[in-house]
Parts: sequence; C-alpha cells; structure tokens
Amino acid sequence: MTPEAVADHIGALRAQLGEKGLLAGGDLAAYETGARYDQGRAAFVMRPATTAEASQAVAYCVRHGIPVIPQSGNTGLVSGSTPDETGSQAILSLDRMTAVFEVDAVNQTVRAGAGWRLSALNARLEADGLFFPIDLGAVPMLGGMIATNTGGSRFLRYGDVRANTLGLDVVLADDDGTVLELGSGLRKDNTGIDWKQLFIGSVGALGVVTECILNLEALPQQGAATLLVPSSADAVPALLIAMERAFGDTLSAFEGMSGNAIRAAFAHVPHLRNPFENGEVPDFVILAELARSNAARAGEQPLDALLEEVLAEIWENGDDLLSDALMGPPEDIWALRHALSDGVKNAGKLIAFDLAFRRGDVMDFLSYMKAELAKAFPMLTVCDFGHLGDGGVHFNLIAPHDHPALADPGFETSVRDLVFSVAVERFGGSFSAEHGIGRKNQAYYDRYTPEAIRDLAARLKQAISPAPLGAAIFSNTRTK
Amino acid sequence: MTPEAVADHIGALRAQLGEKGLLAGGDLAAYETGARYDQGRAAFVMRPATTAEASQAVAYCVRHGIPVIPQSGNTGLVSGSTPDETGSQAILSLDRMTAVFEVDAVNQTVRAGAGWRLSALNARLEADGLFFPIDLGAVPMLGGMIATNTGGSRFLRYGDVRANTLGLDVVLADDDGTVLELGSGLRKDNTGIDWKQLFIGSVGALGVVTECILNLEALPQQGAATLLVPSSADAVPALLIAMERAFGDTLSAFEGMSGNAIRAAFAHVPHLRNPFENGEVPDFVILAELARSNAARAGEQPLDALLEEVLAEIWENGDDLLSDALMGPPEDIWALRHALSDGVKNAGKLIAFDLAFRRGDVMDFLSYMKAELAKAFPMLTVCDFGHLGDGGVHFNLIAPHDHPALADPGFETSVRDLVFSVAVERFGGSFSAEHGIGRKNQAYYDRYTPEAIRDLAARLKQAISPAPLGAAIFSNTRTK
Repeated sequence: MTPEAVADHIGALRAQLGEKGLLAGGDLAAYETGARYDQGRAAFVMRPATTAEASQAVAYCVRHGIPVIPQSGNTGLVSGSTPDETGSQAILSLDRMTAVFEVDAVNQTVRAGAGWRLSALNARLEADGLFFPIDLGAVPMLGGMIATNTGGSRFLRYGDVRANTLGLDVVLADDDGTVLELGSGLRKDNTGIDWKQLFIGSVGALGVVTECILNLEALPQQGAATLLVPSSADAVPALLIAMERAFGDTLSAFEGMSGNAIRAAFAHVPHLRNPFENGEVPDFVILAELARSNAARAGEQPLDALLEEVLAEIWENGDDLLSDALMGPPEDIWALRHALSDGVKNAGKLIAFDLAFRRGDVMDFLSYMKAELAKAFPMLTVCDFGHLGDGGVHFNLIAPHDHPALADPGFETSVRDLVFSVAVERFGGSFSAEHGIGRKNQAYYDRYTPEAIRDLAARLKQAISPAPLGAAIFSNTRTK
Repeated sequence: MTPEAVADHIGALRAQLGEKGLLAGGDLAAYETGARYDQGRAAFVMRPATTAEASQAVAYCVRHGIPVIPQSGNTGLVSGSTPDETGSQAILSLDRMTAVFEVDAVNQTVRAGAGWRLSALNARLEADGLFFPIDLGAVPMLGGMIATNTGGSRFLRYGDVRANTLGLDVVLADDDGTVLELGSGLRKDNTGIDWKQLFIGSVGALGVVTECILNLEALPQQGAATLLVPSSADAVPALLIAMERAFGDTLSAFEGMSGNAIRAAFAHVPHLRNPFENGEVPDFVILAELARSNAARAGEQPLDALLEEVLAEIWENGDDLLSDALMGPPEDIWALRHALSDGVKNAGKLIAFDLAFRRGDVMDFLSYMKAELAKAFPMLTVCDFGHLGDGGVHFNLIAPHDHPALADPGFETSVRDLVFSVAVERFGGSFSAEHGIGRKNQAYYDRYTPEAIRDLAARLKQAISPAPLGAAIFSNTRTK
C-alpha cells in the first residue's frame, strides 16, 4: 500500500467507526507487540464497538485487499494476534466490544461482548454466585479465549472453552462481512452442522468472534488443596487414579510442577512462601485441589479433613505412591502454581512449548525428553509444569542469557525441532495444547498436519470465509 | 438403476466386502424399516467390517452415482438412517464395525468401532469401573449417537456425545472414499480446525463415522432418587436452582414428567409400580437424582439421608415450591421414567417432537402450547416429558386412533407446523434437540435455517464431501 492509499483507508474507516474506532499514526505499540515475542507493524488499528461495526470494518478491508488480524487481549504466546513486520496488515481489536452483558440466571448463561476480560467478567458475575469456569494465569479477553479454545487449570472439572460455549456471533472474511448468529443459549440443539465449532480454536482464521453466550457454573463454596510429592515418576498416574477414585467429581485440579520451575519461581517472584521442609524443593510436586459448588452442611466433614484422611489411607495402603504431602491454605498453594510462569520467564532465555499427551504418557515423555535434551543441548534447564489431569504440559527450557549457543540464529529452531519431533512423532502428542496456531508455530502446523487435512482446510476456508484473516494460515498456499 | 446395473454393483461390492458384507435380494426389512416411521427400499445393504472396507464401499458408490445412507443402530425417530422408497439408495450399515475395542485406563478413554451398541460397550466397560456416560432409553450404536449428538438423561452431569468424543475416523463421500483420522485421545489439542466437530450431530451427511475414541467416566458408586411434585409450574425453575445450590455437582438428573405421560405408562406398560398416594397421578412430576462416582466413606451421611434433609429444608423454607416428595429405590423411580416412551407410543396415534429451550422457558412453553393446542386441536392429549436440567422436552401428542381428523392427510403436518412455529419462532427453541435431521423433519430445517447458513452448508458440503450421503440434506438444492 502507498502512504496515500493508507491515508485514504484511514479516512474512510474513521468515518465509519468514529474517532475512537480507528487508531493510526500515533503509538500503536500496545497493539503491535506480542505478549512474549515479536514486534510487528500495523497499517492501522480498527476498534469496532458493535458487531455491525466489525462487519463494516472487515468488509471494507476485504474489498480493498487489506489482510485483517483479529486481536483480543493480546496475551497469546504464539504470535497469533499481532501483525507481521510489513506494515500492510490491519488489526481489528475487540477491546471496545464490551457493551453487551446479559445474565440468564435460570439458564446459567451470560451473553457478552468478545472484548470482556475474563477477570472483569468473573468479577461482575460474582454477585450472582456464578463464574465462567476457565482458570488461567493470564488476563485474556473472551474473543481470544474462544479463538484458542483455552483450557487452563480446572479443565479436569469444567472442560475447555468449547465445552462451555453455547453461542457465537461471528463476522466472516467476505465482501459483505457476513454476520452469522450461531446458537442462542440452548444446551441441546442438533439441527444441522454446529457451525460455532468451526470458529472455536481456529485462531480467527475463519471469522472474527464478536459476541458469545457462555455456560456459567456456581462459584465453589468449599475448597482444600495440597502439595503431593510422588515417590517416583511411575507413581504419578497411579496417584491421579487413586485421587479420582477417592474424590470423584470433587477433585478439581491435579497439576504437575517440576522442582526446576518451582525453584525459578522462588528465585524470581518476590514474597513467595517456601512451604517445603528446610526449603528443599523436591524434583516433582503435584498440586491437588478439591472443591464443591455447594456450601458445607452442618455435621459434614470439611474438605481439608477429608483430604487428610484419604491421603493417610493412600500413604498407608502399601503401594508406596507418596513420599510427602503438605497441607496449606489453597491461596498459598495456588500462589506458588501461578508464580511458575513469571519464574521461568525471568530465569534466562526461555524456549517455551505448550504440549499435550494422553494422560498415561506425560511422565514417560518428560523422562525421555530430558534425557535427549541432556545429550543434545546440555546448556538447557527443563522447567516444566502443567495439567496432569488432562495431559497438558507447559514444557519450558531455559538457557543462560550469556551462553554462546544463543548467538547461533538456528539454535532455537534446532531445539524446537527436537522437542516437537519427540512429542508429536514418538508420543503422539499435540504441539499446541491450548495456545493455538500463530506465526510462531505455523511451520509445525505445516509439518505435522496431514496433507489431506491441509487441503480440506484450504477448501473450507475458500468456501466460507475466503479473504485473508488472522495470523494462522490453514492452507498450503500462503496468501499475501 | 436398471436391474442389470444393480446386479453388477452387487457382484462387484460382494467381491470387495465378502458374503457377509453385502446383503441383497433377501429380507432387508430390518435395514429398510425405521424405528417408528417409514418403510423404505434399499438397492442393497453394505456391511463393511473395517474402515478400509467402508472407504472402498463409499468410493464405489460415489464413482457409480449411488447415494449412500449410513445406518447405525437404526433407533432414530426422524428417518435419518433409512432409505427412501425409490430403491435406488444403498445402505451402509455399521453393524459389523465392532472389532476394535481398546480401553486406556489411565487416559479414561476407549477406542471402539462405530458398530458397538451403547449397552454392550457399557457392559464390557463395567469390569474396569468405567462407562460412556450417555444415558438413553434406546439401544443405539456409537456411530448414530455421534451422528445425532445424543444427550439423554444425565446431560446435566456429563454433557452430550460431543463433550465426550476425543477422536473419530471418518470416510468422506468423494471418489476416493477419503479416510480422515481425527484426534487420538488427547484432551487438549488446538492445532487448527477441530474437524471432528463437523461430523458430530450432522447425521452422516458429511461423512461416515467408522471408529471413535470416547471419554469414559467412573461408574457411580452412590445414588439416591426422588419424585418431586412442584406446587406450580412457576416453582419448577426455582426448584431446579435450589437443588443445584444444595447439591452442586452431585445432582445428576432433573427430569420432568407430565401426569398424562405417567398415566400412559401405567396404562400400557405392565408391572409398573404406582408410587403415588391412592394411585392418584399429579399433573407434573420431577425425577431428581443424586450420584457420586466415589464410594461412600465410613461416617459419611448416605445420599438418601442427605436428599431427605435438603428436601425438608426446601419444604420448610416458606417459598412453597413443593407440594409432595416421594422417596424410593432409584431403580423403581427410573423404571417409571424409562416406561414413558413405551407408554405414549401405545396410547394412540403419536405425533412426537424433540424440542429444547433455554431452561427458564420450558414451563412457559408447555403452558402456552397446551392452551394453543386445546383451541386448535382439542382431540390431542399432551404427554410431554423431558430434561428440565438442560431444557430438553420430548413433546408428545396423542390422538385417539379412531378420531376422524386422522383421515385428513394434512392433519399431522398442520399440528407440526403449529408446534414448531410456537417452539422456534415464539420461544427461540430448537426443533431437534437430540434426534438430528432426517427426512421426517427436513422441511423444518429448510424453513428455520437462515438462508446464509443453508448456503454455507451447501458450499461446505461441496468443498469437503461432495457426493450424496445420508438422509439429511444440508443445502438448498436436493440432490437426486
């Protein structure tokens, strides 16, 4: 685009979207910079306040051949919501899509604009005793959560975003900016193709989510948490099964934390209490949580007493699964879990992976992968943590900032190639559990998606939403 | 097709699929007859035993222009799995697709052929203490459950088939009978479009499901059930919320049963115990069930005692929600619930609907609809029952077999038009909650699906699986 053409587009779009609705020329860094990686450049930033405005904005860009990058909370880690460095892409930010907020208390649903932050949504729902039950460290907006189908730490109990989405308004990338209203809060509705499923997890490549209807759950009324030290890696799946047997639906989280990740948190996150004996961090720790959404009844055993009783039974049953168990206030225990991300981010040069496995494969992958990395890349420290209850692993590798290997521009790619090949080819795992596809992992989508599926994706994209949209390219041929 | 051409196809397919794999000429009634409606005629019945054979069979039919009707347990109620009366369609039965059965106990999943009956699958899983948690009156096969995304009576606790499907093998209707292997039992995997979602609930129109990976749940270890008589229709949503607040995740079913449906069951199903005082059936009864997947612990209050205690509190709290509550063995209480279908089927000429609403709208719909029907069709008795916890309503209308109105060939269509217009247009409900789309309700798909969505469906079908497949037509143009 020539500067004159860009100026024309800015004028035309500002007339449609208003002063607040079109940002250009000034400081766009907040929109152009990824949460962890990348610094791109946008032609301009469109900020529609309604679905109709979003439709106008998309239609304008499609008709003028301007690629659109939908952007939500911009907390993603795979460069899925930021523009590339060409300056020719337009950002469509959802940050003004917050006018709609309608709770249906009997249906246990909320209709909300896609620009609502998860934290703000849940703060507003608290008065009704309800919440949208996706538990994440970050503070994303709803549109991005839907586009990446986030799971988080309570997946075990509540499922992912997909399982909790009952309706979507979506703008397609066609000449009309066609608006689809998909679903209306019904929990059972099988009247043809369930179109909204196509837009969940596909990172904005097929359409821009502008509004949604979400399932809500009752806020937990009782909770208890513990830090378990398994006797060995082999004991971990057995512990998970034993806890599920004993607690049933009351088990609400079962998270794995490597000693390295915990040590990084203690080193880099202030005011974090070290609960371990003599401060000695074990090699691997499990955070287990119980929760109930009903209030405790008179005479009922409190959850922490129940937890202690069951742990004592597991301890004594002779299977030798546990080598230690620490009780403590759930807030303290979760503070440690939530500090892990910040810890590893500040521990050195971070190479991060968002993997998932069948539940029985997680510990085997960790053991095999660590041995391979020690051989190939001995300068890397493995600081993994994740969601044992659903097989998710945030596999983080740290190199000292001053290590000479980092000077090699191919170093990170070599590391990624090795980890992905083991995770995907040897263990049948996922190379993107809940972060979606962006420019950062596009090459691995191209490598690990069968050709038949990539062909289908290209045909599907062409059939329903043909213009360039989003950072992820679900086809064989990259569009300019 | 000429008889000679049919004979040629039979010969060619028998050579590929074997003697057991191709039925023709003899008695095909079990495959040609719908569970409740319709008697069609098939050119022949293909019974592949593997995904590779299913692919060969579909490819053969596509290349020779023979429309294929995938058929699973054939328990559907909308003519979605039977051929039309032309004799030109081929049935592809899944009934030999049962060789695959692999349980992964740590992952809590099973890989199974699509020809497994739900009842047989759960019988085999019982030894592991696991089950596929979709509770239905019928005995469907997995392929059909996936194609219609059934929900059933424990939706409230476990969700629908979609929420419990982690992988699918699918054969597309193209020249190659392309096989897609979608998902491998991972619970988190967001690496592009989630293709399997397209085949769940779309009634075989986009592809034939041949194999699946399903989420399993621990078998309930504790249960209690009650029959509640609400003081009024308005009390029903308040009772649902009160029970959810009190019991949280332990509430596993909340089913509505009209007095008329219960009376039909007593009249037509032998050996059914009448638990009501003096045998007098109330106007509306709710079946509420509690269940826990963990075993009861020493000293813990049994679920039936807990249920009685909470009901006493609801009774005494002054909101006047309950006019009666009957405790009883869960088997007896469920026997009544499961007898309702047989009862209404034998009570006269049945016109059945499978509707769903937002939870707060169910009782309002019932009240409004009954008044409208009394005016327009006074010969009809409303025998509704359904799933209040998720808004599903099996809305059944009964006319005396000898009523003269039945002689009018347009009578049933007039009744359907009225009910659907109220359910969909006035209450924003679904005209097919969990039965899917077949020839029986195709006209309502065409009427109530927005044109933009029908156009998209036609383009999607053309792009990924272009040949005629299934009884449902998700496009504007019917293919011959």
